[in-house]
Amino acid sequence: MFSGSAVIDYDNTAGFNTDGVPAMIAAYTADSPEKQVQCIAYSLDNGRTFIKYKGNPVIDSKHSWNSKDTRDPKVFWYKPGNHWVMVLNERDGHSIYTSANLKDWKYESHVTGFWECPELFELPIDGNPGSEVMYGASGTYMLGSFDGKVFTPEAGKYPYTAGSIYAAQTFTNMLDGRRVQIGWGRISHAGMPFNGMMLLPTELTLRTTKEGPRLFNVPVKETEQLFSSVRQWENLTSDQANELLDEFDRADGLRIKTTFKLSHATSAGFNLFGQRIIDYDLNFNTVNGTFYSPADRTSMEISADIYIDRTSIEVFIDGGAFSYSMERKPHADNQEGFHFWGNNIEVKNLEVFSAQSIWK
Amino acid sequence: MFSGSAVIDYDNTAGFNTDGVPAMIAAYTADSPEKQVQCIAYSLDNGRTFIKYKGNPVIDSKHSWNSKDTRDPKVFWYKPGNHWVMVLNERDGHSIYTSANLKDWKYESHVTGFWECPELFELPIDGNPGSEVMYGASGTYMLGSFDGKVFTPEAGKYPYTAGSIYAAQTFTNMLDGRRVQIGWGRISHAGMPFNGMMLLPTELTLRTTKEGPRLFNVPVKETEQLFSSVRQWENLTSDQANELLDEFDRADGLRIKTTFKLSHATSAGFNLFGQRIIDYDLNFNTVNGTFYSPADRTSMEISADIYIDRTSIEVFIDGGAFSYSMERKPHADNQEGFHFWGNNIEVKNLEVFSAQSIWK
Repeated sequence: MFSGSAVIDYDNTAGFNTDGVPAMIAAYTADSPEKQVQCIAYSLDNGRTFIKYKGNPVIDSKHSWNSKDTRDPKVFWYKPGNHWVMVLNERDGHSIYTSANLKDWKYESHVTGFWECPELFELPIDGNPGSEVMYGASGTYMLGSFDGKVFTPEAGKYPYTAGSIYAAQTFTNMLDGRRVQIGWGRISHAGMPFNGMMLLPTELTLRTTKEGPRLFNVPVKETEQLFSSVRQWENLTSDQANELLDEFDRADGLRIKTTFKLSHATSAGFNLFGQRIIDYDLNFNTVNGTFYSPADRTSMEISADIYIDRTSIEVFIDGGAFSYSMERKPHADNQEGFHFWGNNIEVKNLEVFSAQSIWK
Repeated sequence: MFSGSAVIDYDNTAGFNTDGVPAMIAAYTADSPEKQVQCIAYSLDNGRTFIKYKGNPVIDSKHSWNSKDTRDPKVFWYKPGNHWVMVLNERDGHSIYTSANLKDWKYESHVTGFWECPELFELPIDGNPGSEVMYGASGTYMLGSFDGKVFTPEAGKYPYTAGSIYAAQTFTNMLDGRRVQIGWGRISHAGMPFNGMMLLPTELTLRTTKEGPRLFNVPVKETEQLFSSVRQWENLTSDQANELLDEFDRADGLRIKTTFKLSHATSAGFNLFGQRIIDYDLNFNTVNGTFYSPADRTSMEISADIYIDRTSIEVFIDGGAFSYSMERKPHADNQEGFHFWGNNIEVKNLEVFSAQSIWK
């Protein structure tokens, strides 16, 4: 069984609702050596148990695509058309299917160039009427328009996140209208009975940049309650900052916000026991290996909001303009702890937060 | 002595011309353990011998910048202002100096965010009045305006080339108005008495893309005379293409043009004895590790013009929208020769050219 998505069928379109309880309906991929088909199952107990639909599969499209790669159904209600939409990764891109009842699906269209775990949702731009966002598993997205049956790409692709993150999916229908994503962190945990981990939930927004609208993401505001500011400094040299951070080198969990400014060279960064949390190169314009050109292209500054957990590090650059994640992997022979590097850099801001466990 | 540039002083502004022979004047950096200063020297025999100016250095700016990094003067004549311009890398960016005589220089302005080997030139956009291009050594550039004293960044930075290439410089004043660049290839040659190599001269142009004006580069048209088309095929499977290329696997020099189309996956490529000449990933949208989103974002196609020399490989993607270079480095244990890889790809075009030596 491969990944998919779940919806609440408030209007009983599928007929699974019982005693006024709206069914939670999961769309998922059943994988076999021969093919991948799409199935549904429903739950009347808030997702604790699921009953598979007897008419499964609801889509068997191997023949149409001459490919085994048909998977990861993302289903949502398309209000303007009063129907369900499924975005399905098929062979070389994302297909759109529509349905009135979640059981009978009609193929509508296809966009090439994506792979696995489709997403499609509308986002305002700076709070105004916005654009549709389509992405796949990799963290690259297109902007475009959607009429309920066809997604028409208009801009992109662009990257918004990189590193360990893969196959992020969003929640639909959040009461406050936010678009919140959780990504899978491809981070290994030796001896653990699970594969990877879920990364921090982040809120997605479209904001106008010097290059046009771009997708930003930052941790959801609910994460704030886990962190307490314990130290804050301004205008430090890297040597001062490195010394002040000594006491936090071995913390289990931590959040660090910092802005630093380059002046005597075009590269600088921030390490933890030799691991490059930030590796900023203003000559080649890369952050940790991915091309990045800041909004103010001559600022020489970079800011980062860094979440360090026992096995993971997540970094949000310049207010979420770019983000990336990595396994926490101190170099065994390194004794530096936290360490700003770079010729004559100024650490303009540095703030350390303690972290509470979410399990408390 | 570090790199710089040379101009012809047709109007004898520096007073070095003799017997009607206009001096070729080189601006260069003299490096010492303490500082880097800018000097000039002139030649009256077409650059065969140079005489250093007695008033050197013409710029000694270590004190202004509190940095030893002041180097690589790029000098050109700014016709609208009737004066010389020097773009000089100083500490954390490119400074503009002006002069009437190449000896006395006035500091005018500075743009941060560049490193080494400045360039600044005007280019038309699609043949129409255009934009100023500023770049450093790395292959990332800004577009902007220039009034003879101040460069004002308006867009960028963007990458246009990557890989072994570094410190490319252009020729000014070409009779036909072209902007031609030669880059330094950071490619080692064991046992040779030189460091790296010069890459192919390329013509730079600004062209409108889906994202706005972008810098393209392709080998200058004069290189065409070195290559003769010897084989051409269309609509091959990768297996067919691989077999047809067998006879060329061990060629000393070669040019290959190809376009291939993906359909059953989002990654594919083209190897030579295991070395990835093209590694195209449409899920993460990278070509050989650098982010690249094609003009037609759903085409699933990529085209490449590939120049293979004894020690180097240069690749021009999609008509020069992106280019990169690498050392030719066959994997010792690989027997594949030329090898297209990728699930069900179609090799739409494949053309092989023999290469003549430029020394014949």
